[in-house]
Amino acid sequence: MKIVILRLGHRIQRDQRITTHVGLSARALGAEGMLLDSDDSGIEKSLSEASEHWGGTFYVKRITNWKNEIKKWKEAGGKVMHLTMYGINLPDVINEINPEKDIMIVVGAGKVPPEIYGLADWNVAVGNQPHSEVAALSILLDRLQTASGEDPLKRKFQGGEIEIIPKVAGKEVRNK
Amino acid sequence: MKIVILRLGHRIQRDQRITTHVGLSARALGAEGMLLDSDDSGIEKSLSEASEHWGGTFYVKRITNWKNEIKKWKEAGGKVMHLTMYGINLPDVINEINPEKDIMIVVGAGKVPPEIYGLADWNVAVGNQPHSEVAALSILLDRLQTASGEDPLKRKFQGGEIEIIPKVAGKEVRNK
Repeated sequence: MKIVILRLGHRIQRDQRITTHVGLSARALGAEGMLLDSDDSGIEKSLSEASEHWGGTFYVKRITNWKNEIKKWKEAGGKVMHLTMYGINLPDVINEINPEKDIMIVVGAGKVPPEIYGLADWNVAVGNQPHSEVAALSILLDRLQTASGEDPLKRKFQGGEIEIIPKVAGKEVRNK
Repeated sequence: MKIVILRLGHRIQRDQRITTHVGLSARALGAEGMLLDSDDSGIEKSLSEASEHWGGTFYVKRITNWKNEIKKWKEAGGKVMHLTMYGINLPDVINEINPEKDIMIVVGAGKVPPEIYGLADWNVAVGNQPHSEVAALSILLDRLQTASGEDPLKRKFQGGEIEIIPKVAGKEVRNK
């Protein structure tokens, strides 16, 4: 299952930090990359620095026509899931998801264009309570992958400069 | 298992949005409340508004002496887990956690005081990669509770004014 994030409605300045958290979490939890519907180059920079240091091939691609990206994705056989607190609760929909299909996860900031509800194959809530798109995305990525027998927390990142040696207390980082 | 968050190192202004996401995620995913080591009253306000509208009894309490809070917690028999990317990876430690014991989860912003590593019963990484404290906390809360047979996404919130009717597409909210 290839996973790509589509970040919609990102506002330069206001959303920089949250979108960076969305990107870093997506990378750490096994997504391949993030399409960013914004001209904000800062996110791309933070995420390439993360991959440079810590490995892997996660990418951020700035896009200008998100509808076209969804269209191309679907034409290539991929599925689209839109995260929204108003959708069907994840536990009630996760069994419908075919782990063989590639999936695009749409993560909105602030208001999203209403058309997205019709374009998505699923509108999914990670619990129907207000919380955080970072939390929703992370739990979704965790549950999707553990359901297919992979633990995203055990993922190895090829390349990069440094890695953590897990410790009972304190910090240890070694050069790769 | 009673779960309380201890948010350390919160910087007024800079961390307001992320700490709000930490609090909202903690509430949605079953924590009882959050101790905030800061005098920032904005977080408390956002979280009480969430509970007023959406139910439940989540609280934010501003504290001035976090070490004392940990001491009191331990004296009452509770355990303390500190989230840090440098710690032992969650899948390698989760079986040690006794679901009968109350747990305080320490979530740092920026730099945390080094003493926390020694005061915690566990220093735990949610994957040893840089990502987001919101992601780390959410996955932890999800895995801790599902391991004891409870799905935090199915949690019901008593009281409040409104609730979402989950929908395949679009939005529906009803008065409670």
